[in-house]
Amino acid sequence: MKPVTIGLLGLGTVGQGVATILARNAAEIERRTGRPIHVTRAAVRNRSKAEALALGIDITTDAAALVSDPTIDIVCEAIGGEDPTLSLLHSAIDNGKHVVTANKALIAVHGNALLEAARAKGVAVAYESCVAGGIPIIKALREGLSANRIEWLAGIINGTGNFILSEMAEKGRSFEDVLAEAQAYGYAEADPTFDVEGIDAAHKLTIMASVAFGMPLEFDAVYTEGISKIQREDVEFAQELGYRIKHLGVARQRDDGVELRVHPTLIPERRLLANVNGVMNAVVVHGDAVGPTLYYGAGAGSEPTGSSMVADIIDITRTMDAHPSHRVPALAFQPEALHSQTLLQTPDYEAAYYLRLRALDQPGVLATVTTIFGDLGISIEAIVQKEPDPSDVSEPIPTVPIIILTGRVREGLVEQAIIRIEALDTITQPLTRIRVETL
Amino acid sequence: MKPVTIGLLGLGTVGQGVATILARNAAEIERRTGRPIHVTRAAVRNRSKAEALALGIDITTDAAALVSDPTIDIVCEAIGGEDPTLSLLHSAIDNGKHVVTANKALIAVHGNALLEAARAKGVAVAYESCVAGGIPIIKALREGLSANRIEWLAGIINGTGNFILSEMAEKGRSFEDVLAEAQAYGYAEADPTFDVEGIDAAHKLTIMASVAFGMPLEFDAVYTEGISKIQREDVEFAQELGYRIKHLGVARQRDDGVELRVHPTLIPERRLLANVNGVMNAVVVHGDAVGPTLYYGAGAGSEPTGSSMVADIIDITRTMDAHPSHRVPALAFQPEALHSQTLLQTPDYEAAYYLRLRALDQPGVLATVTTIFGDLGISIEAIVQKEPDPSDVSEPIPTVPIIILTGRVREGLVEQAIIRIEALDTITQPLTRIRVETL
Repeated sequence: MKPVTIGLLGLGTVGQGVATILARNAAEIERRTGRPIHVTRAAVRNRSKAEALALGIDITTDAAALVSDPTIDIVCEAIGGEDPTLSLLHSAIDNGKHVVTANKALIAVHGNALLEAARAKGVAVAYESCVAGGIPIIKALREGLSANRIEWLAGIINGTGNFILSEMAEKGRSFEDVLAEAQAYGYAEADPTFDVEGIDAAHKLTIMASVAFGMPLEFDAVYTEGISKIQREDVEFAQELGYRIKHLGVARQRDDGVELRVHPTLIPERRLLANVNGVMNAVVVHGDAVGPTLYYGAGAGSEPTGSSMVADIIDITRTMDAHPSHRVPALAFQPEALHSQTLLQTPDYEAAYYLRLRALDQPGVLATVTTIFGDLGISIEAIVQKEPDPSDVSEPIPTVPIIILTGRVREGLVEQAIIRIEALDTITQPLTRIRVETL
Repeated sequence: MKPVTIGLLGLGTVGQGVATILARNAAEIERRTGRPIHVTRAAVRNRSKAEALALGIDITTDAAALVSDPTIDIVCEAIGGEDPTLSLLHSAIDNGKHVVTANKALIAVHGNALLEAARAKGVAVAYESCVAGGIPIIKALREGLSANRIEWLAGIINGTGNFILSEMAEKGRSFEDVLAEAQAYGYAEADPTFDVEGIDAAHKLTIMASVAFGMPLEFDAVYTEGISKIQREDVEFAQELGYRIKHLGVARQRDDGVELRVHPTLIPERRLLANVNGVMNAVVVHGDAVGPTLYYGAGAGSEPTGSSMVADIIDITRTMDAHPSHRVPALAFQPEALHSQTLLQTPDYEAAYYLRLRALDQPGVLATVTTIFGDLGISIEAIVQKEPDPSDVSEPIPTVPIIILTGRVREGLVEQAIIRIEALDTITQPLTRIRVETL
């Protein structure tokens, strides 16, 4: 059969991964597809740098020409950013090209319009590599678990953040210390905001929630809380209580709406997810029929990301000459069957909570605090009062940390408890509040 | 669009799972597929028992009539066994029906002919539920990781065996004790041979290896060793050394051929696979581009298995009216591109080895034993000599257990070492040999 031709936008880390895999595994891939797949052109900013790679690909600096090149079947985007990427992809679609992209921000924020344009034109937009790198999680959600009503999913979907939390837990280091090292090694960007403040994870959660629940992409609805405020002592107290702290993206389908949230989370140490360390990613998906399933692998990197992009290319190859109705719908559900849902706000979230207080070391404090929980109907699962720290001379009276684990409860009630506790004279600092998920 | 009609062979645990999921999630599934899917008929042995389920399905005892019923699009097989199942499925294919089956033994042993018949007729045979229950592992191997040359995979793919080993490890119980309990609770069959001797796992490994490596199904080539000889002391010694014992199916692509083997295996305790306990399943797949990935979930049960069968039904629905070339090939590779491979025999296997000896407690034994390893060029990673057991009065001189962990080596060399060691006068029992995989 006629070869399938790929035009690459970008030849950076990810673009090189795609080109390398398609070249190295060409024979095996053709045994799968029954037809060869060739990268014929790549559009780059720096021609000489790209030519120095000697990939045997025609190099151009004219991306607009590539996306309208009549000899190209599939445009594979690995440049990132929004401008001019979004207009290039719209142009590729207008020219009847199928699109494969690793651009999670673009899909999360502009995906609804992009996918609608592709639908109108009868071409595919594939984005497996946007979420959890090499893990085929979009395929699992869209196809592998298609029998299920997905009830919730929870994932470690940012490798940088997980590396930092893993180092803090394993070596007792501080957030700032590990971040500086991650930046030195190139794991973390010079501006780490996207990673450590959860924005990158929110992009990925947006996409997973859409294909899990059959709703349009709603990036603005994701509640996002980063890991930069996690203290070493919280990591230690969590471990004493049998938990690990992970930065999770959580999407939950409830009868009254959907929770979409990214935040640090205590997970029981025996859960597999609690044992996913370093830069690895993992996602737990809970379906009504299958129960819990978990998917683990490399969340980033040249070839892991390339692995997902090439898998998308192979999938497109299979049905590119078939009627579009034979393809899996872009967001798992038929476009006309996507339903917007009520997006729940933080006071309506339901979780258990880890609360760390610092109180004056005097009688009656615990009784006062527990009475506040009792009055609000919040159950307490565990309470630990630590010894005063003799080196702490910042207060005239010694203070002690108190750790409380609540039962599962509406977050609004916990916020009320926090306000009341912080108003007590015996409480010397703002409370630390971290959500707990038993998964 | 016209509804898709399903004929069920069997309404036992799995068949009921399929019917229940398709009924309960009918609306959501139609939002995915764009057309309704109905179970219209089921063929059973016991009509009154099936009718008592009140599923609203036409019940027949004439399976031959069902597989030739012109109103049925997809035959979903959940009766198991070989006779008359195999001929029923061939008959379904001859009548132009697509087939979904959970019958791992049938696919592993008779799959090549069945799939060839389906190819000739232009219909699909889907078998996701044959391996690891609800985990979409076949989809991951065939599609999600299609960019990769799969280098190896290793899985806990028998829930009964994993339940037994987990209980032995967590509670210090004996194999016989846990097996009896598992039988009492219905986790294990009255005849547990298929589960504990690894035959069930070998069926599943056969199927995974075929789609991973692009080779025909070769059940007879799988080396199979069960868990019935695992002693409580081996579980304990493994834990002391930082390992867990799991019953793994391992498939490895080497330059000189393929290893297909099912056997008890020591795994480092920090690996996720070492922490998969109870009846759960998990598979690690290592691709050349993506590196290691892991898939975890329920390996059996009515709805987990039904989840995979319904996902297969939905996949078939998407392309049932398209040309067969638009479907994913049954064994991941185009039929004409499947290559038989050299199937390596045990002396050529490569692994590390755990060896437990029992030796007379007298000077020089360790030196003699380690000299044998040195002479054969086998490196020793760890060696532990335990205290003599004072309660052991079975020998005139006290004996001590010696545990040796070798480096990675050809199994043939280890077998030579075992023969030489067992010939020593100071060795009082046959050696115990368990393979070690660091994964």
